This record gives sequence, structure tokens and C-alpha cells, in this order.
Amino acid sequence: MKCEVVAVGTELLLGQIVDTNSAWISERLAEVGIDCYRHTAVGDNSGRILEALRESIDRADSVVITGGLGPTQDDITREVIAEVMGVRLEKNLDLVKRIESRFASRGRNMPDNNLRQAQVPVGASVIDEMPGTAPGLICPIDGGKVIYAVPGVPWEMKAMVSGAILGDLKRRMGADTVIRSRVLRTWGQSESGLAEELTEEIDRLDVEGSLTIAFLASGIEGIKVRITAKADGEDEVEDLLAGEEERVRSLIGPWVFGCDDETMESVVVKELREQGLTIATAESVTGGMVASRLTDIPGSSRVFRGSVVAYSEDVKHDLLKVPEVSIVGEAAVTNMASEVCRVLGADVSIATTGVAGPESHDGKPPGTVWIATSVDGEVEAKQVSLASERLLVRQSTVITALNLMRLRLLKRSTH
Amino acid sequence: MKCEVVAVGTELLLGQIVDTNSAWISERLAEVGIDCYRHTAVGDNSGRILEALRESIDRADSVVITGGLGPTQDDITREVIAEVMGVRLEKNLDLVKRIESRFASRGRNMPDNNLRQAQVPVGASVIDEMPGTAPGLICPIDGGKVIYAVPGVPWEMKAMVSGAILGDLKRRMGADTVIRSRVLRTWGQSESGLAEELTEEIDRLDVEGSLTIAFLASGIEGIKVRITAKADGEDEVEDLLAGEEERVRSLIGPWVFGCDDETMESVVVKELREQGLTIATAESVTGGMVASRLTDIPGSSRVFRGSVVAYSEDVKHDLLKVPEVSIVGEAAVTNMASEVCRVLGADVSIATTGVAGPESHDGKPPGTVWIATSVDGEVEAKQVSLASERLLVRQSTVITALNLMRLRLLKRSTH
Repeated sequence: MKCEVVAVGTELLLGQIVDTNSAWISERLAEVGIDCYRHTAVGDNSGRILEALRESIDRADSVVITGGLGPTQDDITREVIAEVMGVRLEKNLDLVKRIESRFASRGRNMPDNNLRQAQVPVGASVIDEMPGTAPGLICPIDGGKVIYAVPGVPWEMKAMVSGAILGDLKRRMGADTVIRSRVLRTWGQSESGLAEELTEEIDRLDVEGSLTIAFLASGIEGIKVRITAKADGEDEVEDLLAGEEERVRSLIGPWVFGCDDETMESVVVKELREQGLTIATAESVTGGMVASRLTDIPGSSRVFRGSVVAYSEDVKHDLLKVPEVSIVGEAAVTNMASEVCRVLGADVSIATTGVAGPESHDGKPPGTVWIATSVDGEVEAKQVSLASERLLVRQSTVITALNLMRLRLLKRSTH
Repeated sequence: MKCEVVAVGTELLLGQIVDTNSAWISERLAEVGIDCYRHTAVGDNSGRILEALRESIDRADSVVITGGLGPTQDDITREVIAEVMGVRLEKNLDLVKRIESRFASRGRNMPDNNLRQAQVPVGASVIDEMPGTAPGLICPIDGGKVIYAVPGVPWEMKAMVSGAILGDLKRRMGADTVIRSRVLRTWGQSESGLAEELTEEIDRLDVEGSLTIAFLASGIEGIKVRITAKADGEDEVEDLLAGEEERVRSLIGPWVFGCDDETMESVVVKELREQGLTIATAESVTGGMVASRLTDIPGSSRVFRGSVVAYSEDVKHDLLKVPEVSIVGEAAVTNMASEVCRVLGADVSIATTGVAGPESHDGKPPGTVWIATSVDGEVEAKQVSLASERLLVRQSTVITALNLMRLRLLKRSTH
């Protein structure tokens, strides 16, 4: 079973909003084993919607079209679908009542414009779920195909897709192939490096057929390794995923820091909570970014004490006892890490100092960064060279520092 | 001039990532007056990429294709473009050297896989900008058309589109019509509120013809009001923009905080530099986010002293002399603002405390936030209620706090 997604809205093509609907719908389709081979976005123009919709329904067995179901003159998806079906629109009296009562329940009168929304192509049926005032439609097409029309408003669309549409699609498929993915998050190895380490496994899966491995770059946040499995039932697919995750971890384990929704900071916070430790940060070049990422995590208040962002030299000297030598160097960063543990009463700490650029500082070029981690009173300092522009130097320092802390916490827990 | 955008990546069609690139590219195209009538997304499948790319370049004069330029076997955009061009790929030796030196500068050896990235369709040229290891390509097509291939990684894509690609497109357009935009950044007023205040002006421009006004929502960062002018020369277009900016500012001035690339934090840093003041922050609920946004700005080291991120209660009491009463309240935030000026030796300060959620704290529901600003020793505190989830509460607090500081600095400079 193949399904395409067509998004309608001039604002998408002007770049004024990002189309998040198509990704969300595709994820739901993939979960029930329906292949989606194309997304299309077109503006509020009847010729161009018609062309895109005809092409999509020719290629696929079904199409979900989002947007253009509102009450205004530029909402023309209903008309275009009627043209594809070769039928006319007729007023659906039940729908008129439903829309009227929707307005009444909000204490408002229905504007006349909204009557447009009760126009339905002859032969189409109205989707039961209707969280807003825009009705969704199930529109049968010759050859056993079908077009589903849903509003572009995400929460209205989601209710209809999760409910009537996935139900209707499953009935039409009559089969129950299940597709599930698991994402291993890695850091510190390039995409091609990981691909080399997994070459044989990927070749083996190509022959075997029920599992695939793919790489997704996430910028400086590392490479995601996605394992996808296809099987006849939930249990089989979970077994396949678990077995494959184990094999993949045995090959690239040292680079894997988390799974699915985990982030570097969520893994660090989880590890701190499990080991009953508190953390503080002393930040110069990162200016509070390590602290703000740690405090992004709900529950971080149980482990995060606070931070001293020491941007000016005398704050480093006064508050963090950085000696009157270079503020970008091993002595400085080591002092920052141990002093911030003392000042804020934390068990472990991360300290950063360096030159973000665009100008050199203290005779050191942009990208020169020192990172220190303190665990149980022992400080380890490391210099890294990050050749890049200001924002990336800062972001790379943050992820590198968090990863160093993660590795030290893991080492600590296995000792 | 028509340009379509084609996004390549199976992860898009599985809904694992949202395609933000196509919207970003379309916004840039719209700014220079190029029409974009369709977005297409296809997976890493050569037949389907070929079909989509041929259709797009048939309909339009140019296509920007994103993704599939990586070093692995499933990165096949280069091959497909060569097929559309009817040429073969050849190794570009300059490119081999550039990619090798990119790895060398990071202290790594280039994996053999990355040699794939130096394969270029005969007749195509390599885009100068190359922030990562994936080169972008400019590929001329019969009939004066062109395909631009860029990586799917957003910051790599953005560098290439902003640079070589928009430049090349403008040259191809050749027309003497110059289109320029200026964006006024506003904060604190809704889109419909701004639209009301500008109704008459927008109607007037509709008749007049050479200028347009559009609204772009930027989430909690406010609404952008974009003025676009069209004229025969650079000077005329600049004059039109300047005159229109003045009229728009006379209508919605109080909401405007900056222009074009200015951000709330860049405006605050600029104002501090002009007034010769230094700033510090004392952050609880924002956990270092205010500090990290201020230090995003090059040159911020001249005005930013540092920050105390006081996440745990005793850090607030010890370091910032917060009295032993509620840590989310007027007394607490006022003390934080004045103490951090003293501790870090700053002229002005921002302090935040509140409940980000998901749980209540201290009997106060998530979204309860206190913000204080200290200027010349005078502290002003304010409570805001931000009904939303954790991340948004934090982000809204940051932008609200920066705006309060901006307004106080403006007031100070006019006294």
C-alpha cells in the first residue's frame, strides 16, 4: 500500500511556515507499514493543486491532502477534489448543523463564509473527528483509490489521521505489516567512519531483508544510526530491533551515547541522578550554554547546583581563583573546575575557557579551547582546537564538554 | 524566474525529521522576487529522485535540490543529476585536496568513502562555500536552466544558498529590476494587532504598487514586518525602503526593537556599548540562557561581566543573599539583581526566578516567573505568567527579560 502526502498553502511556498504535518503523517503511515514515497507542497492555486493531486493519486493508492479546507475564498481543496473525482459539490445538511453547533458552543454566530465548509463532493463521506470547524473528507476515487482531505491546523489534522484515516487505511490494506525504528545516537565518529565499521553488517542485512540501517547527520550533535525493522506483528518487530541493536552496539558501541529521544545532556543528568551526584559549571567561552542545556532537562534541579559564568578576567580571578596567568590555559581551566565545586558545593563540575572569535585573544587564535572536568575532586583538563566560526566553536565546546563528563561518569560507575 | 525545491532523504518520508530547509530556501527566493510553486520530497532512491528532479526542472527554470551529497552509498544525488544532465561523473582533484585538508585541519584522516564526494558531473561547477566536507554543485541544464545541489545539513546549505546560489540566480535573472527587503523586528504585539495598525498603509501600497508589507511570525521572538521594494536601480530601491521604513515606524514604532539581522540580545549589547555600561545576570529559571544569548554576540566581552546561575536554593541564599523566604517572588528576584551587580562588579543586571515545570514548586504553578532589572542601582521587578510548557516558559522569560533591559536602557539614554 502506497500513500503520498500533499500539503496546500501559499505560506509554505513563501517559507513563512514550515510543513511539520507531512513528517508527522508519514511517521504514522510508516508505523502501520504503509510506504510513503513522496511529499508535495503547492500554493493556494487551483491549477497547481489539481496537477499535484492528480500526479500523486496516479502514482499511489491513497493521498492525504492537508490544508485549504477553511472558510475563505482561497480555501479551494474541496473544489479541486471534486474535479479529480469528476463530481460536483453539494451542501451536506448534517454538516451545516454540526458547524453551527460548534460555533454555538463557543457562544458565537456562524459567519456565512463557514457554509462553504459544508460543501462536500458527491460520493465523499465526512470524517467523524472534527475538533475545529473544518470537516475532513474521505473521497473514493476510481480504481479503489482514495483521497483523504484534512485541515492544515496540526491538532485538527492529527485527530483525523489518528482516528478515521488510519482506521480506513488499515481496513483497505487488510494486512498487518508493522514497521518500527530505533535510533542510536553517536558522537565522535564521522558518518563515513561509522559506515566503514558497519559495512559487513549492512551488506548482511541487504541480503536478509527485514532490517535496514541508515545514517542521519545531526550537525555537531553527532550521527544518528537508525535501525528499521519490518515484520507481521508488534512482538516480532520488537525482537528484530532488540537483536539488531545488540549487533550494532557490538560494532560501534564506544561511539553510542544514547537511544531515540536521549540527548547528551539528558544522559549526563540521568547518570548524575543514578550516582547521586550534583554538578556545577564554570563557563567562560560557552557563556552559560552548558548550564542552559543541563537545565533544559526536566528534573535537572535535583542534580544541578548552578554555574558561574566568568566572562571578564577579574571575575575569573576573584570568584574562581584563576591565577594571574593566561586565562586560556590548563592552569586557568583546572582552577575554574575545582573552585566552582567549592563555591557552589557540587560533587562534579565542567569548566570551559577559550577563544570563540572572531578575534584572537591573549595571543591565541579563535577555536583554542580548554575544557576541564572535576569528579570526586580529581580534575582532568584537555585542550581542543575547533577551527570554525564563533557559534560553532561555542556549540562544539558544549557538546565536547558534556561528552567528557559523560565518559568520566560512566568510568566512575564501573569502578 | 521560477525555482522549485526538491528535498532528498528517506528520513523525511519516514517522518523522522521535518524538512525545514525547503521553507528557509523559499523565504530567501521570495526575498529576491523568485517564484517558488512547488516543494517535493523523495527518498534515497535513484529512480524516484530522477523522476522528481526531471519533473521539477521541466516546470521551472531552476531547482535547488537538498540532501544526498554525503559520503555513503545511499547518497546518490550526484549520480542522478549527472543522468539528468546526460553526462558522466569525474573526479575533481581540487576537491579531493579541499576535502583532505578539511579532515587534516580537524586532525583526522579522510576515510576512503569521502572520495565519493569529489565526484562531479562533467560541466558542473563546485560552489565556493564549503563549511563541511560535502561540496555543493551548480549544474547547468539544456535550455539555460540550472540545478543547484546542496547538502541537507542546514548550516552547510544556508552558507551555499546565501552565497553562491542567490548570486548565480540574480545574475541569471539579469533583469534590471532590483528587489530588496528590510525586516523590522517587533516584539509584544500580535500579528493581527500590527495588521490593524498598518491597515491603511497596506491599502495605500496596494494601489501604489512598488512596495509591499508582509508579516512573518517568529514564534516567541515576535513578529517580523517585512517591507519589500521593487525598482530599476539600487539607489531607487534603497530610497523607497528608507521612506517606507520611516512611515511604518511612525505607525508601529513602540513595538520595533531592531532591523534585519538584529536580535534582542544584539540590540541590548549595542546599547550597553554605546552607553559604556557593563552587565551581569543572575539566573534561576533560565539557567544561563540569558548569559548564553548575550555572549552569542561578537564583542560582548566588552560589556558582559558574567553570570551567577543559582539553580539550587542554597546557592541563591549564599551567593546572591536571597532572604530565607520564597525563592520565587519579588524579594528574591530583587536581591538577585542587586547582589549580582555587586558580586560581579557590573553596572546593570538581569535576574530571573520562576517555575519552568512540569511540576509546581514552592506552591506556585509552572509558568510563574519573576524578572528584575537593575540599572544604576535601581531595581525594577515584575511578575509574568507564562502558561506553557517547560522550554517555552524558559525561552519566553529570556526574551521578556532582555526586552525589559532594552527598554530601561533606551529610557536611560534619552534622559
